[in-house]
Amino acid sequence: MAPQPRLAVLLGDPAGVGPEMGVKLLAREANSAAADLLLIAPDSVLAAGERIAATKLDTIRVTAGEPLRFTPGRITHLVQDEPAGVLVLGECSEAAGGVALRGLRTATELARDGHVQGIVFAPLNKHSLRMAGMQEEDELRYMQALFGVDSFTCEFNITDRLWTSRVTSHVPLREVADLITQESVGAAVHIIDAALRRSGIARPRIAVSGLNPHAGDSGSIGREEIDVIAPAVERLRRDGLDATGPWSPDTVFIAARRGDFDAVVSMYHDQGQIAMKLMGFERGVTLHGGLPVPVATSASGSAFDIAGKGVARIEGLQHAFDLAVRIASS
Amino acid sequence: MAPQPRLAVLLGDPAGVGPEMGVKLLAREANSAAADLLLIAPDSVLAAGERIAATKLDTIRVTAGEPLRFTPGRITHLVQDEPAGVLVLGECSEAAGGVALRGLRTATELARDGHVQGIVFAPLNKHSLRMAGMQEEDELRYMQALFGVDSFTCEFNITDRLWTSRVTSHVPLREVADLITQESVGAAVHIIDAALRRSGIARPRIAVSGLNPHAGDSGSIGREEIDVIAPAVERLRRDGLDATGPWSPDTVFIAARRGDFDAVVSMYHDQGQIAMKLMGFERGVTLHGGLPVPVATSASGSAFDIAGKGVARIEGLQHAFDLAVRIASS
Repeated sequence: MAPQPRLAVLLGDPAGVGPEMGVKLLAREANSAAADLLLIAPDSVLAAGERIAATKLDTIRVTAGEPLRFTPGRITHLVQDEPAGVLVLGECSEAAGGVALRGLRTATELARDGHVQGIVFAPLNKHSLRMAGMQEEDELRYMQALFGVDSFTCEFNITDRLWTSRVTSHVPLREVADLITQESVGAAVHIIDAALRRSGIARPRIAVSGLNPHAGDSGSIGREEIDVIAPAVERLRRDGLDATGPWSPDTVFIAARRGDFDAVVSMYHDQGQIAMKLMGFERGVTLHGGLPVPVATSASGSAFDIAGKGVARIEGLQHAFDLAVRIASS
Repeated sequence: MAPQPRLAVLLGDPAGVGPEMGVKLLAREANSAAADLLLIAPDSVLAAGERIAATKLDTIRVTAGEPLRFTPGRITHLVQDEPAGVLVLGECSEAAGGVALRGLRTATELARDGHVQGIVFAPLNKHSLRMAGMQEEDELRYMQALFGVDSFTCEFNITDRLWTSRVTSHVPLREVADLITQESVGAAVHIIDAALRRSGIARPRIAVSGLNPHAGDSGSIGREEIDVIAPAVERLRRDGLDATGPWSPDTVFIAARRGDFDAVVSMYHDQGQIAMKLMGFERGVTLHGGLPVPVATSASGSAFDIAGKGVARIEGLQHAFDLAVRIASS
């Protein structure tokens, strides 16, 4: 039998729903049976999560500098420094962001040095991360820099069995059309194709969305489909990928939902995000593609409005965990 | 008791699922109890619909030129000319489009002259309508010209209790941003506000979507929200409308689905259509706003792939009917 993958698990932003979600995830026996689990958290944050989740975890406590020890069925808890200030549930702060950011740093360094084969984190809060000194656009870029990765990275959004990625992301809508090129479409399809193969799908069926209403309606509502996207799809097919399109943006997700495709590559942020959030926000997973190990989290956020109430659902985080195990095992 | 509204009902494109859907709609006793129904169709198309739907309608047959007669609980059938050629199920043709187009013309003229107070039609096929000589962009413009309406008209998409309209429609995505002005946003909100009031909602709660990802994220991903949409919403609120926004495009529909709003005004075609089609395509209604009487149809199309099989669902058409009755009665 192959050795179990070793996964780092982080409790996310300690002022949000992360600690309670992380504790609930770690408490499931099936999860500690599926991987060796390394929890990275300050004692007080773990204790708070346990209290809210009404669950006590069975952990082996390890402090920084000690060698990591793993015992089947138990959770290794690498103790992080305590917060540098008071944490208030539901509030952004440098102290909260600092806990989350140091956890990301430790997990990334452990992954970089081969001690863990994947990272799963509970929801973060970008504003707190910035207050704590994160200079990068988001945690993906932050971890990418620590990994020393220069090549293309991107975020995948996954709901149930359907994956999406996008050719353009956080850019103004008026700039989108000029960024749709045969090269950018091709790169977006290739990276999701590779990631799906690593996740276990031999020949991913990838739908490429159009840009314009009704995919341009034969050129009468824009020509990008004819001039750019169709030739890009044609080239991808010549390269052996099962890419099709351009499909009409307002119906491709209906076809994908009923199982016609493994992935939809959308042309801009909201084309994919409107659909994915409606199709199951609470079950959704965000996977950071292009890093040396799988890095996954739930699509839902730090949810300050319900933090501490013990009602946050963990389907998304569980799916993120399952996916990280699957990729780390492959 | 106020007199019942009188509605014209059309069977749509005779080569698609329209006749079977229309017959099923007309066969429901609750519908002939809610309005005086005027079916406009050739004998052969009605007979085909009855055969596929396995239902015989109880009709009073009236030919062109005869006075219209209505009897409670029965359907008045105004006999239209037979098709000018052979109809083949599932195929576009001038003959099929001609039946649909002449039906639209007759219904519109009857509405214009005060003989009916609303029009409901089963799915059309735009390509066949064009083959039959329709010059206009779509049936809304065709009917608008017959009504002699010069003012602003637009299409509303309705699923369950949620209405949407859009500031821009069938334009290339690269042209959208320049068409978002305080005037165009204001006009789109005013027209849906008025239509919702006519449908019976005293003070409609209208969410105005942003244009950019995360509604621009305070200006870091585009400035249209700050420079255009927020001031337009502010002006609408000063005018007494319950308009709010700009909301993030990828979450506003989740809030709307759980009942926070009566309508979402989107900035472009797919922002609204991706969401609405996922939220219940088969139950959706299209209402043509800005005409003198309600004109409603199902959101689903002529569905040539299942025409004649008797499996087409009529929820959307039933909702269209209910809405037309409600508006015509107000």
